[in-house]
Amino acid sequence: MLSIVITLLVLDLKPPPHEPGRLLPALIAQWPTYLAYVTSYLYIAVVWLNHKAAFQRIQSMTRGLHWANLLVLFTTALLPWPTSIVASALAEDNEFDARVAAGLYTLVGSMLCLSFLWFFHVVGRHPDLLRADVEKDYFPNERIRAVVGAVVYLVAGVTGVLWTPVAAMIMSLVVPVFYAITSHGYVTLPDAAKHVLSRRKDRPR
Amino acid sequence: MLSIVITLLVLDLKPPPHEPGRLLPALIAQWPTYLAYVTSYLYIAVVWLNHKAAFQRIQSMTRGLHWANLLVLFTTALLPWPTSIVASALAEDNEFDARVAAGLYTLVGSMLCLSFLWFFHVVGRHPDLLRADVEKDYFPNERIRAVVGAVVYLVAGVTGVLWTPVAAMIMSLVVPVFYAITSHGYVTLPDAAKHVLSRRKDRPR
Amino acid sequence: MLSIVITLLVLDLKPPPHEPGRLLPALIAQWPTYLAYVTSYLYIAVVWLNHKAAFQRIQSMTRGLHWANLLVLFTTALLPWPTSIVASALAEDNEFDARVAAGLYTLVGSMLCLSFLWFFHVVGRHPDLLRADVEKDYFPNERIRAVVGAVVYLVAGVTGVLWTPVAAMIMSLVVPVFYAITSHGYVTLPDAAKHVLSRRKDRPR
Amino acid sequence: MLSIVITLLVLDLKPPPHEPGRLLPALIAQWPTYLAYVTSYLYIAVVWLNHKAAFQRIQSMTRGLHWANLLVLFTTALLPWPTSIVASALAEDNEFDARVAAGLYTLVGSMLCLSFLWFFHVVGRHPDLLRADVEKDYFPNERIRAVVGAVVYLVAGVTGVLWTPVAAMIMSLVVPVFYAITSHGYVTLPDAAKHVLSRRKDRPR
Repeated sequence: MLSIVITLLVLDLKPPPHEPGRLLPALIAQWPTYLAYVTSYLYIAVVWLNHKAAFQRIQSMTRGLHWANLLVLFTTALLPWPTSIVASALAEDNEFDARVAAGLYTLVGSMLCLSFLWFFHVVGRHPDLLRADVEKDYFPNERIRAVVGAVVYLVAGVTGVLWTPVAAMIMSLVVPVFYAITSHGYVTLPDAAKHVLSRRKDRPR
Repeated sequence: MLSIVITLLVLDLKPPPHEPGRLLPALIAQWPTYLAYVTSYLYIAVVWLNHKAAFQRIQSMTRGLHWANLLVLFTTALLPWPTSIVASALAEDNEFDARVAAGLYTLVGSMLCLSFLWFFHVVGRHPDLLRADVEKDYFPNERIRAVVGAVVYLVAGVTGVLWTPVAAMIMSLVVPVFYAITSHGYVTLPDAAKHVLSRRKDRPR
Repeated sequence: MLSIVITLLVLDLKPPPHEPGRLLPALIAQWPTYLAYVTSYLYIAVVWLNHKAAFQRIQSMTRGLHWANLLVLFTTALLPWPTSIVASALAEDNEFDARVAAGLYTLVGSMLCLSFLWFFHVVGRHPDLLRADVEKDYFPNERIRAVVGAVVYLVAGVTGVLWTPVAAMIMSLVVPVFYAITSHGYVTLPDAAKHVLSRRKDRPR
Repeated sequence: MLSIVITLLVLDLKPPPHEPGRLLPALIAQWPTYLAYVTSYLYIAVVWLNHKAAFQRIQSMTRGLHWANLLVLFTTALLPWPTSIVASALAEDNEFDARVAAGLYTLVGSMLCLSFLWFFHVVGRHPDLLRADVEKDYFPNERIRAVVGAVVYLVAGVTGVLWTPVAAMIMSLVVPVFYAITSHGYVTLPDAAKHVLSRRKDRPR
């Protein structure tokens, strides 16, 4: 499902309306769309990696975990919406609208972090759902990363609403970069688990 | 396929047309779209869980079951259509149109329940298609839930057409919540089956 | 991929533009869209079943078979395009345009049959690509069905262009119904293979 | 995910606006859209085959390889955007806009080749990530093909910007055809590996 969300983002990139012969400036004037697109693409890519990394460590599900997971997916599926709003608001160049749009984007962004926080919290309370070989501090660490993300989006939101929307979007770009750099991903498991996982991963998608 | 339907719903959330500086009220005026979006998202999420839960208990298929399944998928795939109609009709604020839209939405909603009823009926008549460890009353219970859903949508439809469309949409939100609460989901299987299933579920998506 | 194509069809169902209070007649006037939608949905559903049934009997691929398969997928992925053209042409109620649209629809429909014919032809020439337990006349029979489909679409096309587009669409609806009824599907395999296949099919998703 | 991108391409094929009775000439005037559609469809199909062929030879992932892979997917997911720009620019028949569009299309096309080059480079430096039975010169050869593609797109871009956009699109069509013809695909593995792979491939998609 995350692969579908990330692919649908491209539907926001459209040929810009323009006077004959003015395609180039029209394309350049669309820069807020590109900024929003790259920001959201990177965010969903990181969500995808983290989601996969989490489920490789989870062995069975409870109903609560199902709903936490569905909330993560709901918030991620929502992301193309504030993305297109922020893109069109920045392009229309009305300061007040751009502040509203940046506020909405960072709100959804931080909701996504909080839904991950809830997800990690549920997993953290049920260590019996995990594989035996998962490091003890894996999900507590994930919780910290989720909190950091939510805080950065909050700060970005306040910045965007009160001060400057473009700065809010650049701060929003920082979160997925931070997640990407600090990602446990597929690399920190003990060797035995790595072996098991690699056998899985080599399956062609 | 259900993951695609649920993701496509977001394509109905678009930047609202608005005067410069009036993005915020334009976003707020879109509340019927959000109500319709959340209602349909929840509905499809529940269909997805139930569909998965059913197929975890089914061991082989007949042609009849294939077609019942295709009807369930057809009706679910249709849902984004009445969703967008109800959203735009409520936003345009014409009472007569809103009644038509609510009638259409609840009609498709109850068709979805009835297609599940048929699906469960076919499965119920062919216990040989099931895994050996499935509880005897699982699919009969599912049938009851399908009937309850169809009846609630019918009542919601009559309410919406004759009385008030917003009440119909709120009643439509009740069905998936009811399904979510009463879901057998992944949790009520005997231990042996749980073990088998958990090995399946831990596969990364 | 076929699950994506079949789901994307719904994007053609949109709230019809209408005067306030005139939603109901506007919805009814959209009947050609519903006819086209159901026709294409059924067609892609049948393609999906047949495609799956074929690949359950195929054990390995050659490059030629890959390209034949890609052509089947290409033509299927194209189908939403003539579907929306025929829907809008019938709704606009211009006889000449409707004939062009029906001609285009049946052309793509018969191209899809012909691409299946090529696919079955390649498989038929390489019996070494098949599982040992596949009946000898399976793929030759499939070839006959593909030819029948191509001929019906051709007749429908001539009917639509020279005589009446609606009749062409109804004939186009006949092809998938014929395929559905004559489908080998999942049911005619020898018992041993059934056992193998059922273990596969019971996987959720 | 590549299956989604290739399917979304069809959303660019829409019923052309036209005077009553003028559907046929309007469809014919859309030829640049068909050329762009076929070019991009073929390109993504080839990317898909090559991507699958590469991952059948890769046994485990590093974080670097994950990011190289995400860049390949990012660039491929972007392709529908220049496709629709080039289609609408050629249809509008303004020479300057068409040159800009052809330049953008070939830029993204060559970025895709370069992202594959990076991907193959990372794999080439980590032979320990590969299956034991992969031929030594497989990934070095892939690198050469990636460079050839990037160069052809560069030449096509210069041709399109300075001389004629249609020639640039035809040259862009040459790259996927070249990739298709020279594809190692599924056929050149040693017999033992073939056996392993065929067991995988026969899984119904």
